[in-house]
Amino acid sequence: MFKLTLSAIFFSIAATSLCADPLPSWNAGDAKSQIINYVDAVTDPTSEDYVTPSDRIAVFDNDGTLWSEQPVYFQFLFAMDELARMAEQDPSILTSDTLKAAAAKDFKTVLAAGEEGLLEVVMATHSGLSVDAYQDNVRNWLAAARHPDTGRPYNEMVYQPMLELLSYLRDEDFDTFIVSGGGVDFMRVFAEEAYGIPPEQVIGSSGKTSYQVVDGVPTLMKDPGIAFIDDKEGKPVAINANIGKRPILVAGNSDGDFQMLEWATAGDGPRFGLIVHHTDSAREYAYDRDSHIGRLERGLDEGPDRGWLIVDMSKDWSRVWPQDDN
Amino acid sequence: MFKLTLSAIFFSIAATSLCADPLPSWNAGDAKSQIINYVDAVTDPTSEDYVTPSDRIAVFDNDGTLWSEQPVYFQFLFAMDELARMAEQDPSILTSDTLKAAAAKDFKTVLAAGEEGLLEVVMATHSGLSVDAYQDNVRNWLAAARHPDTGRPYNEMVYQPMLELLSYLRDEDFDTFIVSGGGVDFMRVFAEEAYGIPPEQVIGSSGKTSYQVVDGVPTLMKDPGIAFIDDKEGKPVAINANIGKRPILVAGNSDGDFQMLEWATAGDGPRFGLIVHHTDSAREYAYDRDSHIGRLERGLDEGPDRGWLIVDMSKDWSRVWPQDDN
Repeated sequence: MFKLTLSAIFFSIAATSLCADPLPSWNAGDAKSQIINYVDAVTDPTSEDYVTPSDRIAVFDNDGTLWSEQPVYFQFLFAMDELARMAEQDPSILTSDTLKAAAAKDFKTVLAAGEEGLLEVVMATHSGLSVDAYQDNVRNWLAAARHPDTGRPYNEMVYQPMLELLSYLRDEDFDTFIVSGGGVDFMRVFAEEAYGIPPEQVIGSSGKTSYQVVDGVPTLMKDPGIAFIDDKEGKPVAINANIGKRPILVAGNSDGDFQMLEWATAGDGPRFGLIVHHTDSAREYAYDRDSHIGRLERGLDEGPDRGWLIVDMSKDWSRVWPQDDN
Repeated sequence: MFKLTLSAIFFSIAATSLCADPLPSWNAGDAKSQIINYVDAVTDPTSEDYVTPSDRIAVFDNDGTLWSEQPVYFQFLFAMDELARMAEQDPSILTSDTLKAAAAKDFKTVLAAGEEGLLEVVMATHSGLSVDAYQDNVRNWLAAARHPDTGRPYNEMVYQPMLELLSYLRDEDFDTFIVSGGGVDFMRVFAEEAYGIPPEQVIGSSGKTSYQVVDGVPTLMKDPGIAFIDDKEGKPVAINANIGKRPILVAGNSDGDFQMLEWATAGDGPRFGLIVHHTDSAREYAYDRDSHIGRLERGLDEGPDRGWLIVDMSKDWSRVWPQDDN
């Protein structure tokens, strides 16, 4: 009798979850229907589009797809803050005008120094220490820093509808990976708590790393120099290197995601490409073709003909942030 | 009544599997006890050594740890066979004495050309084609080729006791990864069938890879040149890059595995280092300090003091191959 009761409870819970809306922060409409119809098709064993769970690989860009990226990538804001913090203890580290400008939060001067300037600021804060020490710095920064426009902690500026999509896919036996131009050591600090994505499913850019025994302690050191840039053509390369399978679902928001969308959706069988279009200046930001961050042009021009879903943030999402009621 | 019966069957199966020997091809003795005691300790929620499932990361070298590596790494035997096959169709590809010697299976001349010679043979067969085409070649080779000493298919020359260890760990909620100096695209062709390890849990060396759209088809191309050598100091670096966690159990067989053993077993809490010592000239091979392949010296000298288990293949394993009865 006791076991029968437990079974009854179990089946009742299962039935409830089958009927519940898996995407409550997505407005009823074409975008939401397309996603649900796709997931239904690839998970229904009687469907001709059925995909076995081991091949249900979904990959997500991070900046602008899972969390915000304005006014500039959050990792770069970390680098600026971190440089200022380091310079308080030792001003002699500011060995160039670019570094001095960064520590003074003078964006314009740093950006005027171009890619080389950005790299200088990143390297000054992302190398010459162990991976563990670096990740402690990121953790401390996330706990204290607040976004200049919203005043929120950065790791709360994640998109509620995308969190629901991640959970929905995992509930349907997808593996969900991040494939981002952001630094892998950086993202792993918060990805598990923010998105439910464990370190081994986070793929990103990386600096050179070496293994050293320092005073008898085996240590992974972050060295100067770039090991891999996980952007544009690099994204399919990184997916092949790290996963070894072609994803069946890809979500991005900028032309840096174009190639992984192109590669994944060219595979056999049913594929799903999704682009988050930032159209919401009221609740988040509105930008695309002319933005310095997250520029989206080719995806808008070619995406629809390629069958990719262009998500209109202002129209398709009933809620943007997890902390909001609307 | 029906449900009660199902429950009864379920509990009976669970009880059986709890009592069954998880390592039947390991002889009773210290090695087997150490493994089982360790796994019991880290999986028992009441133990002070308990490790949560998400941190139960186990990594295994491949050549000489999961399958044989004599008389030379199997991937190199593939390269020699592949070169001969290619030269049959187009002899003009044999542009050097080393390549001619390799296609003629003249080991000695190839080995005399040193590392550069080996690299030349590998590059001639591992670049200039797509990842998919390359993996088809590997698949065809595995289906047809036979080992020079045993006459067995190469993917049957896996160690039954290690297969049992992999299954046992997975049953106890470990994630099992390969971390090998072998090529990642090569190993992924057989690792899932041979070991139950899916592509996303195979980490290895890699050549340069590019993303190209070839005649309208998105393609990952294997290019000339090395991207990463997953050996020695490279192994902890690759584990950090791909998994982002320090493993709690590491198995290897050569000094190429020393650094990942050192790093993993230096972590907090209970750790397990295991070295397969090839002592079995009757059933497999016997080699260590003086071997050109799988040289094991530092591991033998320092391993026991570091608490690593040195597995004596001839003494600790009752069976070597899956196909044998003994």
